[in-house]
Amino acid sequence: MPTLIPVADPADPRIEAYRDIRERDLVGRQGLFVAEGRVVLEKLLLSRAYQPLSLLIAANRAEALASLLAQVPEGVPVFTAERAVLDAIAGFPLHRGILAIGRRIDTPDADALLARLPPRATLLMLSAIANHDNMGGLFRNAAAFGTHAVLLDSDCCDPLYRKAIRVSVGAALLVPFARLARGEDGLALLARHGFTAIALSPSGETELADLKPTPRTAVLLGAEGPGLAPDLIARATSVRISMTPGLDSLNVATTSGIVLHHLMSKARH
Amino acid sequence: MPTLIPVADPADPRIEAYRDIRERDLVGRQGLFVAEGRVVLEKLLLSRAYQPLSLLIAANRAEALASLLAQVPEGVPVFTAERAVLDAIAGFPLHRGILAIGRRIDTPDADALLARLPPRATLLMLSAIANHDNMGGLFRNAAAFGTHAVLLDSDCCDPLYRKAIRVSVGAALLVPFARLARGEDGLALLARHGFTAIALSPSGETELADLKPTPRTAVLLGAEGPGLAPDLIARATSVRISMTPGLDSLNVATTSGIVLHHLMSKARH
Repeated sequence: MPTLIPVADPADPRIEAYRDIRERDLVGRQGLFVAEGRVVLEKLLLSRAYQPLSLLIAANRAEALASLLAQVPEGVPVFTAERAVLDAIAGFPLHRGILAIGRRIDTPDADALLARLPPRATLLMLSAIANHDNMGGLFRNAAAFGTHAVLLDSDCCDPLYRKAIRVSVGAALLVPFARLARGEDGLALLARHGFTAIALSPSGETELADLKPTPRTAVLLGAEGPGLAPDLIARATSVRISMTPGLDSLNVATTSGIVLHHLMSKARH
Repeated sequence: MPTLIPVADPADPRIEAYRDIRERDLVGRQGLFVAEGRVVLEKLLLSRAYQPLSLLIAANRAEALASLLAQVPEGVPVFTAERAVLDAIAGFPLHRGILAIGRRIDTPDADALLARLPPRATLLMLSAIANHDNMGGLFRNAAAFGTHAVLLDSDCCDPLYRKAIRVSVGAALLVPFARLARGEDGLALLARHGFTAIALSPSGETELADLKPTPRTAVLLGAEGPGLAPDLIARATSVRISMTPGLDSLNVATTSGIVLHHLMSKARH
């Protein structure tokens, strides 16, 4: 159990990183991020790719969180504050009463990440996913269905943004990811590593239910609305999910769940 | 093309229903609701279960929306306002620039709704879904995969709440729904109408991929966290979606997408 450090003044410089966290985005500042809530903190403490720099918890929750706090590494400060102080620091009512600042310590480039994967592997390659809810949902589904990695193009938002981590229920800290450089040819990279690329599109040639599994499969998904770029679709196996005619496409996170569930089921049968 | 009625004063009593719409919930007031955005409005104008009572649009969008406005029934007022007035009425920046107040005119009870369905039908029966994002996502998937109806227990939030309609991309206005009375035995109702009830649960006995289709299937889904009540699961065919051990369950809307896609694919093959 680490020593708890009470904070009484919202302006205390030691908790600067927690100030007004709703409006700020720590990502990009040395790979820092905010983790919220017990489930997310558990994943942060389990991970070898991330490390906690500090925690800030509601004083009245310290006892209930004892088993979690026991896993906090030596030397990581755990600040405590009364509810009113906590809310004043965070800038909004912090119902969960538990926050941490974390740092990413494993930042492989896409090539290095793919080189680590096992012979049978599934990954997501995401294009221009700019919505944090969708990014969180994509990681949540990736973790649920045993996806080994996520590749992001340079137009994707950051999976370590607070809301994305929260919506992912911490899965953004579980599934390894790497970002492609702007202009990098992701499909060529996938081919070099033996991945079959399937591109989801409402006008895809193959119905998902008919898709044959391959040992290494990369699922390409683009933002709702514009979808994937036509040249990406043309260079991949294009796959559709049949639906009621005349409706908009599915939510991209839901799409990932349907596709990853299909691939996992086929691999098992 | 209806006559456009300019509104210059945010306090104009004629647009009272649009005031501070983010904070208010019209639902329950004679079945009124707020529809936002072009796609949702298109679905409202197509529907026979709902009718528009009025529209409020940004004056500078009237020309671009001409084809939509041409479908507005005679006698339905279309108010226009400059952007600043519009935002002052709505209480927040209204990027989409198009709102309508609608009314539900078809409100069957659950028994009457089921009596209308075709011999082969799929429906969702939702328990304690209190999150409007999830409710919207559930309707979006229901529409995408041709689900014929949605039944809500008395603990579900309203699908006609503004955010639920928006997240559903208007599908909440497409898929017929009915609410069970508090304490009403939904499973008995389903059985009377010849529906096989399948209950989704992480500990379900049957793996989804092995589920045999039946002519009439009702998919039971509960809120994330608590899930479905044990007595509901015990009285239905319990079904699981296999996933990585140790992770939280899937998002409920994603779950609906996976299950409804499976049922639609099986029905086709």
